[in-house]
Amino acid sequence: MYFKMQKGLFITFEGADGSGKTTQLNKVKDFLTQEGFDVVITREPGSLDIGQKIRNILLHHEGFVSDRCEMFLFLADRSQHVDAFIKPELDQGKIVLCDRHTDSTVAYQGYGRCQDVELLKKLNAIAVNGLAPDLTLLYDVSTETAQQRVGSEKDRMESIGLDFHSKVRKGYLELQKENPDRIKIVDANNSIDKVFEDTKEIVVKLIQERRGK
Amino acid sequence: MYFKMQKGLFITFEGADGSGKTTQLNKVKDFLTQEGFDVVITREPGSLDIGQKIRNILLHHEGFVSDRCEMFLFLADRSQHVDAFIKPELDQGKIVLCDRHTDSTVAYQGYGRCQDVELLKKLNAIAVNGLAPDLTLLYDVSTETAQQRVGSEKDRMESIGLDFHSKVRKGYLELQKENPDRIKIVDANNSIDKVFEDTKEIVVKLIQERRGK
Repeated sequence: MYFKMQKGLFITFEGADGSGKTTQLNKVKDFLTQEGFDVVITREPGSLDIGQKIRNILLHHEGFVSDRCEMFLFLADRSQHVDAFIKPELDQGKIVLCDRHTDSTVAYQGYGRCQDVELLKKLNAIAVNGLAPDLTLLYDVSTETAQQRVGSEKDRMESIGLDFHSKVRKGYLELQKENPDRIKIVDANNSIDKVFEDTKEIVVKLIQERRGK
Repeated sequence: MYFKMQKGLFITFEGADGSGKTTQLNKVKDFLTQEGFDVVITREPGSLDIGQKIRNILLHHEGFVSDRCEMFLFLADRSQHVDAFIKPELDQGKIVLCDRHTDSTVAYQGYGRCQDVELLKKLNAIAVNGLAPDLTLLYDVSTETAQQRVGSEKDRMESIGLDFHSKVRKGYLELQKENPDRIKIVDANNSIDKVFEDTKEIVVKLIQERRGK
């Protein structure tokens, strides 16, 4: 029903840095493209020109960045991304694969930084203006494994520490419990091939369901 | 009461571009400095390093900027400005004179662009985290006069047209009706000297009141 209305499919990829979500996103893109779908990939923050400038502020500013400033910058980026890219692409019937979206804000700023989770959900709703993902793939990985994978090349967001990342993981799992139909957990502790097998199964099932309607 | 608690005084200057508010802000600064007060001046958007980057996006981006993106960028700038500059300066007992603040968002984005005024007020409240100006000077000028004063050097915000600016002016006046104690109208159609006379009267009265408490 939704698929027919939107004519496209919106899938978001969520999880910690080091969860392998970006690798999986690219593999899903290749797979669906081979299957004949029109697929575009994108990411938050910073996929557009304006977003790139916002991303630079968020990831590379060296001074103090107020929590609320950071929150509003993410929301600005998201609003522009939805209006200027995601919605137009979906309207053309494309499958849009997005690396991080609303759940990242709630998990990182809400649970991770202990900001008001309910407020963030409301602000997200304003930013996306009614658009919700058809599917969110949550790549769940132990915090230790994620940290090992990320290694030493950490940006401002990644270098915050283990306790923070544990809270983010907990937040993601909480969100999944609240949205079991939309958010599907993939065990990202496994090998890339196994993770992709699990990913593909979920994606194929969704597409078959949507085609059947 | 508030003065004693905050140890400082927060005065915002609002009005159309071309209303002369920035000129008046500088004159107030000179006057109060001569009177022995510790005065700092600032502006929104873009008074800090991060804010400067945000201001550049807002004023000079040539492509499409989503209304909600613009709104969140202003709020990001404001949050950072309040946390990293205004509150610390007030805590040191200074008088902070700010060129545009929350009322600009409501007047320009809310009334001017017909976005949800009540929502913007709520978002402003989040951005300022409890801080309200002790006084807001609203420089009210006819839209035609403001446009003539601005002349041909218009940035993206200023080049939007007469109908927009009429709506902004109406919005400011509406805000003043809702907050008659905080927002004082100054007739900015008059000469610079006369406008400053009126401004000074309001500012001096406020300081005398606050000192008396």
